[in-house]
Amino acid sequence: METETKMSIKPYKKAADYSYTLGAFPTIELIKSGTAAVRGVYIHSSFPDAKQLSGLCRARGIPLAVNDKLIARLSDKENVFVVGVFEKYTQQLDASRPQLVLVNPGNMGNMGTILRTAVGFGIHDIAFISPAVDVFHPKVVRASMGALFRLRHEYFQSFAEYRGRNPQHEVFTFMLNGERPLTVENCPKPGLFCLVFGNEATGLDDSYLSAGTSVIIPQSGEVDSLNLTIAVGIGAFLFTRAAAGQ
Amino acid sequence: METETKMSIKPYKKAADYSYTLGAFPTIELIKSGTAAVRGVYIHSSFPDAKQLSGLCRARGIPLAVNDKLIARLSDKENVFVVGVFEKYTQQLDASRPQLVLVNPGNMGNMGTILRTAVGFGIHDIAFISPAVDVFHPKVVRASMGALFRLRHEYFQSFAEYRGRNPQHEVFTFMLNGERPLTVENCPKPGLFCLVFGNEATGLDDSYLSAGTSVIIPQSGEVDSLNLTIAVGIGAFLFTRAAAGQ
Repeated sequence: METETKMSIKPYKKAADYSYTLGAFPTIELIKSGTAAVRGVYIHSSFPDAKQLSGLCRARGIPLAVNDKLIARLSDKENVFVVGVFEKYTQQLDASRPQLVLVNPGNMGNMGTILRTAVGFGIHDIAFISPAVDVFHPKVVRASMGALFRLRHEYFQSFAEYRGRNPQHEVFTFMLNGERPLTVENCPKPGLFCLVFGNEATGLDDSYLSAGTSVIIPQSGEVDSLNLTIAVGIGAFLFTRAAAGQ
Repeated sequence: METETKMSIKPYKKAADYSYTLGAFPTIELIKSGTAAVRGVYIHSSFPDAKQLSGLCRARGIPLAVNDKLIARLSDKENVFVVGVFEKYTQQLDASRPQLVLVNPGNMGNMGTILRTAVGFGIHDIAFISPAVDVFHPKVVRASMGALFRLRHEYFQSFAEYRGRNPQHEVFTFMLNGERPLTVENCPKPGLFCLVFGNEATGLDDSYLSAGTSVIIPQSGEVDSLNLTIAVGIGAFLFTRAAAGQ
């Protein structure tokens, strides 16, 4: 184990060609998945359980070093003992798999939670329609608990561009003025589907009413709307269960 | 409209007998609900749309004042233009209504999101089993988007104490080692139910396996578990839809 880093790792910038995981769990996910090239793993000298990490790094030829200063600089006040530095990458969605489409997602914590939820329900292809927050921001990576590395993601300039490249999917748009209330009994069971959700504050504009089948999760008028992450969770649960024939 | 506050309002303390809403939407919810006594409403001098708030406050005899310093002191870096100061209160659950039970909830944002979600699905009675975060903390109130004021909440020292006072409910405990997978087709349709969820990190301990019917939301082994708020959202959706016979 090295005790000094040879690289200069700086707090996250969108323009950088690398990002990093914060925490042991997402770092292990990063390494195991093999999705990204891992430049190095840094642990705090007080980290109690480095055995698993050491073994993983050794087996894959990943440099491992103790570096308390680096961790303090990157961890932004949170309790972090492990940092994994990885190279950013680009991917293409698998057009033959169910997909989730986030139109203009604006909150990093929500994006991470949604990635984790999608993988939890077996959806591994996620489209982001720009403008959208940066999926490689450490806050997103952390909120995803490393699920980012278990899926394919791709940015598109518009929904039309997305559809041009993924034309086979039956489209379901989640809207407060959606036509079809989504209930336990009547959830559609499409073969290949994409579930489309809008921005946290503004939702999907009315052009999405005609993009496919617009649906609404029935909810009380007592609240403004469901939280975006909750709506995605319910949608993903219903459609993947329905697709599984359960 | 007054231009000075006559009260000394301090950043939140658990021991204080008052708390406050941050933001126009939850403040309007606070006033409209009538659930809490409102001591005063404070707006920032740059708040563009004070008309609705002014009318509401006047109709209910609530003091309204412009106070930029107070808002800056309470708002903790976030963009806030309205603060509503209210007196804390205690409530009792309605034993004849469906209930949500949160055992040792530890995250304020999650608690607020869960309150908003519960009200969104028509669950208005929420039990907290101590230790639990403080439901009156401004972060909880804000994350709830004011839904706190639309429901009844009550703290209990133990699940046994809760059950002693709410003995009629059929109990469903959400556990990763739950016996019954909860699917779209087989969701129970109990008359009166309570849905029980554990702490974000630790879940429910095994004693809850025999507290009622233990259930699990089927999920991929690729993620550690669903986020607590997502699990509550899916549970509340399934059980309230089922209860409505839909």
